[in-house]
Amino acid sequence: MKDVINIGLIGLGTVGSGVYKILTAHKKDFRRKTGVDLVVKAIAERNLARADMVGADRELITDAEALIEDPDIDIVVEVIGGTEPARSFILKAMKRGKHVVTANKELLSSHGKEILETAEENGVDILFEASVGGGIPIILPLKECLVSNKILKVMGIVNGTTNFILTKMSEEGCSFEEALKEAQEKGYAERDPSADIEGRDAAAKIAILASIAFNSRVTSSDVFVEGISKITAKDILYAKEMDYVIKLLAVAKEVDEELEVRVHPAMVSAKHPLASVNGVYNAIFVEGDAVGEVMFFGPGAGSMPAASAVVGDVIEVARNIKYGSSGKTGCTCFRDLKVKAIEEINSKYYLLLKVVDKPGVLAKIAKIFGDNNVSLASVIQKGSRGSTADLMCLTHLVKEKNFQKALNQIGELDAIDEICNVIRVEECQNE
Amino acid sequence: MKDVINIGLIGLGTVGSGVYKILTAHKKDFRRKTGVDLVVKAIAERNLARADMVGADRELITDAEALIEDPDIDIVVEVIGGTEPARSFILKAMKRGKHVVTANKELLSSHGKEILETAEENGVDILFEASVGGGIPIILPLKECLVSNKILKVMGIVNGTTNFILTKMSEEGCSFEEALKEAQEKGYAERDPSADIEGRDAAAKIAILASIAFNSRVTSSDVFVEGISKITAKDILYAKEMDYVIKLLAVAKEVDEELEVRVHPAMVSAKHPLASVNGVYNAIFVEGDAVGEVMFFGPGAGSMPAASAVVGDVIEVARNIKYGSSGKTGCTCFRDLKVKAIEEINSKYYLLLKVVDKPGVLAKIAKIFGDNNVSLASVIQKGSRGSTADLMCLTHLVKEKNFQKALNQIGELDAIDEICNVIRVEECQNE
Repeated sequence: MKDVINIGLIGLGTVGSGVYKILTAHKKDFRRKTGVDLVVKAIAERNLARADMVGADRELITDAEALIEDPDIDIVVEVIGGTEPARSFILKAMKRGKHVVTANKELLSSHGKEILETAEENGVDILFEASVGGGIPIILPLKECLVSNKILKVMGIVNGTTNFILTKMSEEGCSFEEALKEAQEKGYAERDPSADIEGRDAAAKIAILASIAFNSRVTSSDVFVEGISKITAKDILYAKEMDYVIKLLAVAKEVDEELEVRVHPAMVSAKHPLASVNGVYNAIFVEGDAVGEVMFFGPGAGSMPAASAVVGDVIEVARNIKYGSSGKTGCTCFRDLKVKAIEEINSKYYLLLKVVDKPGVLAKIAKIFGDNNVSLASVIQKGSRGSTADLMCLTHLVKEKNFQKALNQIGELDAIDEICNVIRVEECQNE
Repeated sequence: MKDVINIGLIGLGTVGSGVYKILTAHKKDFRRKTGVDLVVKAIAERNLARADMVGADRELITDAEALIEDPDIDIVVEVIGGTEPARSFILKAMKRGKHVVTANKELLSSHGKEILETAEENGVDILFEASVGGGIPIILPLKECLVSNKILKVMGIVNGTTNFILTKMSEEGCSFEEALKEAQEKGYAERDPSADIEGRDAAAKIAILASIAFNSRVTSSDVFVEGISKITAKDILYAKEMDYVIKLLAVAKEVDEELEVRVHPAMVSAKHPLASVNGVYNAIFVEGDAVGEVMFFGPGAGSMPAASAVVGDVIEVARNIKYGSSGKTGCTCFRDLKVKAIEEINSKYYLLLKVVDKPGVLAKIAKIFGDNNVSLASVIQKGSRGSTADLMCLTHLVKEKNFQKALNQIGELDAIDEICNVIRVEECQNE
C-alpha cells in the first residue's frame, strides 16, 4: 500500500497558494487522517514570486506539461481557471491515470460531459467541490447525503460580488454604481466585473449544481441569465415595503420532467432564510422529496475557503487511492431532461411603470393584462411627481410569454412614460 | 460483483417507516445510482399494523435476532433508538460482518468508542448521519468536505422542540408553559418532554459532533447541560431590547488543546445567522481555520427527513460494498483532549435581579462583582414596581467560577429580593 501520495499543483494564484498553505501546515494531521503523506511534488507556476510568498521551494516549480508527464504524480490539482489550457491539462492528466481535483466552474459547466467521461474511461477520480460556493460543502452532500431524495429544486445565492452590491444598496439606499465602486475598492469585484454582475459566474455554478441534482447534464449555455445592473434603489425600496428583498438568484427546478434553470434578480420574502444571507456570503437551498428543505451557507469565495474545499477533495481522492475505490462517484447524469425556454416558465412579476398621471391609464393597463391572460395581484400608485406617477404592478403566477406580450403592448400606450423595471418574484414554500 | 444488496430493518416506527417508504418508492432510481438492487429483506417489528400501514409484506416481519443471524443480509438498519437492546443488536450484527446504519444518538453518544472499534475490527461500515440534525447533512461534510480544516468551533440549534418553544415565546410573548403546551398539542414535544427541554437530547448530539470535529471522543456525560424551563417572557423581552435572541445552543470548541462542550440557553446577536433559525428547524454552525464559518440548516427531525439521511447512508454503504471500500471512514478519534469543567469556561453573562429600590444597592452589587474580578459591561434598571425594581447586569468575558462566586455573595445581600435568571451571552465573530 502506498505511503506517499504525490500532488502536482497547477497554478499558485489565489486558490493555489491557499492549497499549498493548507497542505504544508496540516501535513501531520493529514497523515493521521489518511494514513499516507500528502506531498506537493511539483508546482506549475510562471510567477516565481508566488512560490517565494508561500515559502515553496523554487525547485518544485516546473511547467504544466512536465508536471502532467511526471509518472510519480498521483493527483493533479488544477486551479488556474478558465476553459483552456485547463481543459487540455486535465484531459491529458486523466489519460495518464492521474486523479484530478479542480475548482474550475467555467470548464465543468461547459465541458463537464467530456471531463467526467474521460475520468470514467480512465478509472480516475475527478472532484470539484470548490467550483460552487467556495468553501461551502454542497457537491458531496448533494451526491451522497441527499442521494436518497428526488431533488425538486436548488436555489441559491452563489455569487458574492453581486450579493455584496445588493446588500449595500439595501442597507444604505445607494445606487448600483456606488455599490459596485465600493465592491471594487474592497477587492470583492474585479476591474471588469461583467462576469459577476451580468450573472455568468452564477450561471456556470447553477449549471453544475443542476447537473448533479437532477442527474441530467446542464451547461452554462442552457441557463437563462439576467444580471443586476438594472436594479435601482427605488426597486429595493418598493420591495422592502412589501417585505421582500432583492437577490440575484440561481434557480434550478424540475417541473413535469423538464428543467427550469435560470439566473436573475428576484424578490424573495424577507422571511425566507436566503433573505438574510448578506454581503459576500453564499447560500444554497435544496428541496428534496424526503428531506424537505435544507440550506448550506458560508463564504462563497476567497483563497482559504476555496482551498479548504480543494484540499478536502484531495484527501477524498487520497482515501480512494488507499482503499482502491477510485472512480467510485463518476458521472451521475443518467437522465436527459429538456431545459425549458424562459418563455414557458411560470412566475410572478413586479413591474414598475412611470405613467402619465391621468384618469383611465390604469384601466388601459389592466385591460391589456387581462386580454393576455395575466392576472394581477395588486396595482399601487407610488407617489406622483407633477404630470407623472410611479405605478407598481404585481402579478399572480403567470406564463412569462404572456407577461412579455402584455408588456410590449403596455409599452406602446401613450400614457406610459417609461417601463422602469421588471423583476421576477420567487415563490417559496418556506415563507 | 453483487447485484442485490439485502437490508434488514430493525424498527418500523417513525423513522423506520420513512426508510421503508423511500427504499421502495425510489428503488429503480437507486439501482441507477448504485448499480445494485437495494432490497428490504427482513423487518424486525412487533407491531404488525405498522407493516400494513407502509404496505410491507407481512412475510418480511421477523425478530431482530433472526434478522441479525440471516446470512443473506448485508446491511442492518437500526432505528429503534435507545441504548439497549440497540447496542447488542448492532454489536452482534457487526461481528457477523454486517454493515450498520443507525440514527441512534443515545447509543453513539454513550458507547461510540465500542461501536466504532467493533466496526473497525470487523471491517464493516457504521454510518449515523441521521443521529444529528435529522435530514441535514452534517456528519459526512464534517468528516470529508471540511477534513482539511482544523475545526475551531461547532455551535448549533440541534433540538427542534426547544427551538419551537423559544420561537413561540419570542414571537408571541407567551410563557414557557404555554409554549410547551402548544408544542405538545402539535406533536413537536412528547408527553414527557424532559429529554428535550432539559437539554439531554442536544447534549447527545453535540457529543457526537464534537467527537468528529475535534477527533477526540466526547460522551454525553462530558457535556455541561442546562435546559430552557427557567427562561421567562421577560428574559426574552430584555434580550430583544439589546438586539439578542435566546436560543438553546449546543457548543463545542477547542481552547488551548482542551475542549468546551456545553448545552445551555444563550443570548445570540440578532444579526447572527443562527438567530433567524426559527420553529422546529435546526442549524449547525462550523468554524474552521481555512473555511471560516459555514452553516447547515434544515429540518432537525421528522419521519421523512431522518429517513432521508438513513437511506443516504445505506446508499453510501452499498457503494462501498460495490467498490470494496467498506470501513473506509472508521473511527477518527486519534486525539485525547480533556473536556474542561464548566467553572473554567469564560463567558459573558446576563443577570436579572429583583432588588429593593433603594439608593446604594447598585454600589454593593458592583463592589461584589469587582472583588471577584467580574467586569461589568452594563447595569440597567428596568422599571420599578413599588418597592422593588428589575436590575439587569451584563458582564464582559469572565470566568464562570468567578461569576458564580460573585452571584452567591450577591444572593446574600438583604437588598436582593430574587435572582430571577442567569443566561450566558454567546460571543460570535459573525455579528
